Amino acid sequence: MNHKIIETLAHNARKAVKKIAIASTDEKNKILRASAEAVRRAKNDIVMANKIDLAAAKKRGLDAALLDRLMLNEDRVESIAIAIETIASLPDPIGQIIDESQPLNGLQLSRVRIAIGVLGIIYESRPNVTADAAALAIKSGNAAILRGGSEAVNSNHAIHKIFHQTLSNSDIPADIVQIVGDQDRAHVGDMLRSQGLIDMIIPRGGKSLVKRVQDEARVPVLAHLDGICHIYVHASADPDMAREIILNAKMRRTGICGAMETLLIDQNYPKPAQLIDALIEAGCEVRCDDMIMELDSRTVSAETVDWETEYLDAIVSARIVSDLDHALEHIEQYSSGHTDAIIAQDDTAAHLFLRSVDSAIVMHNSSTQFADGCEFGLGAEIGIATGRLHARGPVALEGLTTYKWIARGDGAVRP
Amino acid sequence: MNHKIIETLAHNARKAVKKIAIASTDEKNKILRASAEAVRRAKNDIVMANKIDLAAAKKRGLDAALLDRLMLNEDRVESIAIAIETIASLPDPIGQIIDESQPLNGLQLSRVRIAIGVLGIIYESRPNVTADAAALAIKSGNAAILRGGSEAVNSNHAIHKIFHQTLSNSDIPADIVQIVGDQDRAHVGDMLRSQGLIDMIIPRGGKSLVKRVQDEARVPVLAHLDGICHIYVHASADPDMAREIILNAKMRRTGICGAMETLLIDQNYPKPAQLIDALIEAGCEVRCDDMIMELDSRTVSAETVDWETEYLDAIVSARIVSDLDHALEHIEQYSSGHTDAIIAQDDTAAHLFLRSVDSAIVMHNSSTQFADGCEFGLGAEIGIATGRLHARGPVALEGLTTYKWIARGDGAVRP
Repeated sequence: MNHKIIETLAHNARKAVKKIAIASTDEKNKILRASAEAVRRAKNDIVMANKIDLAAAKKRGLDAALLDRLMLNEDRVESIAIAIETIASLPDPIGQIIDESQPLNGLQLSRVRIAIGVLGIIYESRPNVTADAAALAIKSGNAAILRGGSEAVNSNHAIHKIFHQTLSNSDIPADIVQIVGDQDRAHVGDMLRSQGLIDMIIPRGGKSLVKRVQDEARVPVLAHLDGICHIYVHASADPDMAREIILNAKMRRTGICGAMETLLIDQNYPKPAQLIDALIEAGCEVRCDDMIMELDSRTVSAETVDWETEYLDAIVSARIVSDLDHALEHIEQYSSGHTDAIIAQDDTAAHLFLRSVDSAIVMHNSSTQFADGCEFGLGAEIGIATGRLHARGPVALEGLTTYKWIARGDGAVRP
Repeated sequence: MNHKIIETLAHNARKAVKKIAIASTDEKNKILRASAEAVRRAKNDIVMANKIDLAAAKKRGLDAALLDRLMLNEDRVESIAIAIETIASLPDPIGQIIDESQPLNGLQLSRVRIAIGVLGIIYESRPNVTADAAALAIKSGNAAILRGGSEAVNSNHAIHKIFHQTLSNSDIPADIVQIVGDQDRAHVGDMLRSQGLIDMIIPRGGKSLVKRVQDEARVPVLAHLDGICHIYVHASADPDMAREIILNAKMRRTGICGAMETLLIDQNYPKPAQLIDALIEAGCEVRCDDMIMELDSRTVSAETVDWETEYLDAIVSARIVSDLDHALEHIEQYSSGHTDAIIAQDDTAAHLFLRSVDSAIVMHNSSTQFADGCEFGLGAEIGIATGRLHARGPVALEGLTTYKWIARGDGAVRP
């Protein structure tokens, strides 16, 4: 094991980033479009590399959900190419003027968007993260050091190779996108302790990965640990709308971080049994308080741990709350700060909810499953952040930038 | 020593912050104006408390510069009151809509500014930081836990008492502004390890304080360690302008973080000797390379350490550089990322400098001493940040906020 590997990659990245920082939008988009085309041309190679990963994963007994996340077929490779093209088509954040002041003290001031620098992306399973992270880094003028999971090592290297080649054919150094070569677990620790070398770490993967990164990192981290998303059905909610949203928020896809995990029903909502019935009919297990258990004998009793659990499965915790304040109290205690929603026709209640709930995303009369950068019109996302600094909610190109102040004078001196 | 003290303060702060988060701008401004008036009324008490601190500091042999920073007289107390009123007069960042999307997938999306939460301010000497931090926290809807230096303990408590009383007479809990009661040094360590309790730490003070905070903190930190500010005098610089700016940037006040510490003169700049002469005539020591030493016998030879030193004194390091690239190279190697400037009539050179130098503030034809939130029109500043995430350069109200996404639908479900 060589502790110098991450240091070397970071030094290469820092050198490379100076070139991409002043690259034109055209230059960057050309690389992205060429990479998308190269991904298409390499479809067979990528699928073949992925087959090796899949075979090894099956041998190691990975479960079906993980195997599905790992799997690449021709359609999924095409989706990767399309995602890269989408990022090429997005506006370039670099050089954007955030704001400008009126001339002040003989100075003209502006804040201009620049890249953050060197990003460390630590991820598991899904090989498409290799392409997404590489493309987002290139577009936002950053360098990326990628560290994927061992189960996807061949797939990740096949995809990385394409970016490496496309960059090698350009004026931008190939070290803008580097992948950690071997799978030594110590490299993750080295990345997390790379203060001054790596500017930001973004973990993508399961809770244990994210928790390790958050606990150990000495470099700033952009992440979310849990997506314990709540929906509160207010007394004024339209019952048809409530049923539709609840079903969608829980059952459309149960494994995503924006899936509803806890349902709070106001005691004055007229049709609570209908909501519970709809969920159970759709195949969802309902773990609930005594009041809901009385409504439907197919429910089971919730334990305290249920309010703290992100099931990522066809299970929901549910309880009756006495009013909006009670719902806010529950959310404050148990929300992971990801996405929480209210269903209400009463705009005053909705307004108070949106104002009071302190999560990255708060919603009114909509499904929490929308919590996604693409759905929010960002074109792509590197992840969802629930921290309080820098960027919150879906993070895309803008979240990968910072700014500098530019002051122009004509001999201005401070009195 | 009780490790629970910081935990208790943070819990109190977190409770209080919920109330101020939904307070109106008027409510907050009323508290600020009342605090300013109360500071005026308590002028004698504050000056008396300060006299106790000054006497103790003299006994302990603090140097003149520190004593001056510590000292409060009637004029300085009046300045504190005016600063609080200035903050009251600034626009309220909370509730500002950062951006709104066109309706998308049945959703209306916006990003709205909210407070960060609980701020920990760790500072030394200047008692006015107590008032500035308290006022900025109130205006930005945050709670502040203040930890001032032991040398200013009586002054800080006298100022804190005023905010405590004004808040107690309002609907906003007094725990919005708390001060760490005793001067046990372990409290600083406890604050730095308060993940999940304190959201951001802002250190204000000397390099050793900032370094300790940056090294030990497990909570995000907004700070700058050094202000090694450079001015590059390009070949095209106007000599009169160059002389004026250089003198102002170095000698107006030598002890501030925006003071020029290194002067880079292009080898094709026609009048280098004049610049050196002007600095020496103004009482500045010039530590320089051989070429500059040949221009003026009153200069001394620079050591490597000089390029890495923030003098905060009437000393400057100076060297001849061969061209813009050479200047950029020097700055990249030695700049602390605070403020760097070019003096040039050639706009292409200026443009390249502003684009290439990666500091929080980059300037053209102006003095680096402008690097200050008030000079930048922010009305007040909590500090200057040289990190890459969240906020850079002078940090004022906006830097003390984050945002949440608000999504409004009318039964929107994700397909």
